[in-house]
Amino acid sequence: MRDVAVVGIGINKWGELWEKSFRDIYVEAALAAINDAGVDHLDSMIIGCMSGGLFVGQEHLGSLMADYLGQKHLAASRVESACASGGLAFRHAFIEVASGISDIVMAAGIEKMTDVSGDGATYALATAADQEYEVFHGATFPGLYALMATAHMHKYGTTRDMLSAVAVKNHFNGSMNPFAQYPFKVTKEEVNDSVMVASPLRILDCSPITDGAAAVILTTVDIARKLGKPIIKVIGSGHATDSIALHQRPDITTLKATTVAAEKAFKMANKKIADINFAEVHDCFTIAEIIVTESLGFFPAGKGGEAALKGETGLEGKFPINTSGGLKSKGHPVGATGVAQIVEVVKQLRGTAENGRQLKKQPKVGMAQNMGGSGGSTLVHILEVA
Amino acid sequence: MRDVAVVGIGINKWGELWEKSFRDIYVEAALAAINDAGVDHLDSMIIGCMSGGLFVGQEHLGSLMADYLGQKHLAASRVESACASGGLAFRHAFIEVASGISDIVMAAGIEKMTDVSGDGATYALATAADQEYEVFHGATFPGLYALMATAHMHKYGTTRDMLSAVAVKNHFNGSMNPFAQYPFKVTKEEVNDSVMVASPLRILDCSPITDGAAAVILTTVDIARKLGKPIIKVIGSGHATDSIALHQRPDITTLKATTVAAEKAFKMANKKIADINFAEVHDCFTIAEIIVTESLGFFPAGKGGEAALKGETGLEGKFPINTSGGLKSKGHPVGATGVAQIVEVVKQLRGTAENGRQLKKQPKVGMAQNMGGSGGSTLVHILEVA
Repeated sequence: MRDVAVVGIGINKWGELWEKSFRDIYVEAALAAINDAGVDHLDSMIIGCMSGGLFVGQEHLGSLMADYLGQKHLAASRVESACASGGLAFRHAFIEVASGISDIVMAAGIEKMTDVSGDGATYALATAADQEYEVFHGATFPGLYALMATAHMHKYGTTRDMLSAVAVKNHFNGSMNPFAQYPFKVTKEEVNDSVMVASPLRILDCSPITDGAAAVILTTVDIARKLGKPIIKVIGSGHATDSIALHQRPDITTLKATTVAAEKAFKMANKKIADINFAEVHDCFTIAEIIVTESLGFFPAGKGGEAALKGETGLEGKFPINTSGGLKSKGHPVGATGVAQIVEVVKQLRGTAENGRQLKKQPKVGMAQNMGGSGGSTLVHILEVA
Repeated sequence: MRDVAVVGIGINKWGELWEKSFRDIYVEAALAAINDAGVDHLDSMIIGCMSGGLFVGQEHLGSLMADYLGQKHLAASRVESACASGGLAFRHAFIEVASGISDIVMAAGIEKMTDVSGDGATYALATAADQEYEVFHGATFPGLYALMATAHMHKYGTTRDMLSAVAVKNHFNGSMNPFAQYPFKVTKEEVNDSVMVASPLRILDCSPITDGAAAVILTTVDIARKLGKPIIKVIGSGHATDSIALHQRPDITTLKATTVAAEKAFKMANKKIADINFAEVHDCFTIAEIIVTESLGFFPAGKGGEAALKGETGLEGKFPINTSGGLKSKGHPVGATGVAQIVEVVKQLRGTAENGRQLKKQPKVGMAQNMGGSGGSTLVHILEVA
């Protein structure tokens, strides 16, 4: 396998983008990545998107987006793993460059979620759960994560304030991210008093519904050098699944697919958790960030909430988590999220994160953890400055 | 890149499978492939599916199918390129084995299309076209291929009888395929007199709506030898896209993405069209098979219809096409089709095609061409007996 580096990143301002079409949003982020990389062509493009069919009535995204990007006849694929579709696109792009079949590959993600009416977005998202054994019976994602939160509180004593600490931190970080959907700060009191969605999760525990895209360019380390770019190497990639239905897992206070994906990524990278300087993780709900930081090994089981409360995951903490603002503040266009995590990891490793959220001690190794459904799939990537 | 071989194939009886669930259909084909290969584990699984969301309200297929296949924590991806999703799954599995990141990978395809009511299937399929510039204005696939047929007839003098010859041949071949949805023969008169769908295309020019799955196992040639399997090598893989909307192409009597994908596959395989002994091609409509055989180079532009009429694409012709019965008779569960083509190519190369449709002169090199939408994406693969 060849060594692979990320040489370009692109993202656009996320939000309720009524004035832009599905293809416009994609092309904007894709062109930004191409410009940043300075490449004169692509050999292939891999697009993460959860449900073009249900959100905008459009499948066949490879063809559509290659066409609108002006890349006639480009080999272009779409991949899907629910909310981990972006991370999956990055993994397949990594494998494609590593294999030698393609030299310059774009990994991109897109979702336009606000064009559906009524409960269309909730229905579309629920297709990431088990349709026959969960969704049919009324389960939706706030409800599933509420079950996990309740179990975690019962088993470990995780508190309301610990959940709120995650939201407060991520909105603080996101307030410095010019691309975030909700770049405002929130207080603990505001989170605690926000409207209940599925007990114990309140609206400020939940990531939003978002339109947005993100793109990155991967190539060989040799080509990256010729481009004169900082060499941000992809040193580890791990991918794992778990039972799609929550009730089929032996323990819902941990995320086994995340643990297994991380083990695979660590093995490939020849690193351990203590080598990781910071991470972007999948905080679709505040409880998710707490359980993910435990499942990755940053903190022991049951200690993730306390760590968040103590500031250990803040910008100046021991393990900064979600310096971008995370899904919580930056937004969560589900297919784009995994790629946007890579965008943030690259910014931090380049030392170019905007508006004061750049980590003070320049990091060398960063991680991205992207998750589908209630944890039924996970992608973990480790990047390092060469 | 490592040399890659197909060591296992699996398919189930296609049709309107009311009595089987989405996951049942998948697992049936997947287990058949695992049994055929004799492997004791998988490193990864890649699933082609066009629209789990619109057809059965289920995305996140990697997690779902790994779970129901009993492959806990398996790395499992879903890929989509409309009706070329199966071919795309095969390509990504090929790249994954070639890269060295995984040794044993399943490429599988699935679609359950008959569970939607009303015009749900037509709507779901239409999302493979351009939603904003085609579908919104009422275009569906029979209409789009009817435009291509009309243009081809006008430019080259292609006739009704030439279209019918494709249907008669494919149903004849399919009558010998125990897995086909419609394993009956049809006469030229029956095709000519069948109900009009979109002039000049009649119902017997169209492939059906189908539930079904197919799976194949790819591994390295070294492992294939250890398994004691016939070595069916993947020697060429080509992938290309084109404008998703038909009206944006300079010439709708040819399929440029097919030509470009074939050129890429020929280059990798170091072969030319005359080296190909037979092919499975994407006959979603009879006119598609005619144009595809021209675009691949089997026949000059405008001569595909005449070749079909003369029997050159029959079992004993110069270039046997769709020995399986093609999409026309075998059925077209869109995500599974590209993988089922590989199943047939492997059967022919092994000399095990059922019920008398095995080619008399044992073939050494076969091709599969799988296409999305009105030709907006194409995958071409070339396989050879080592």
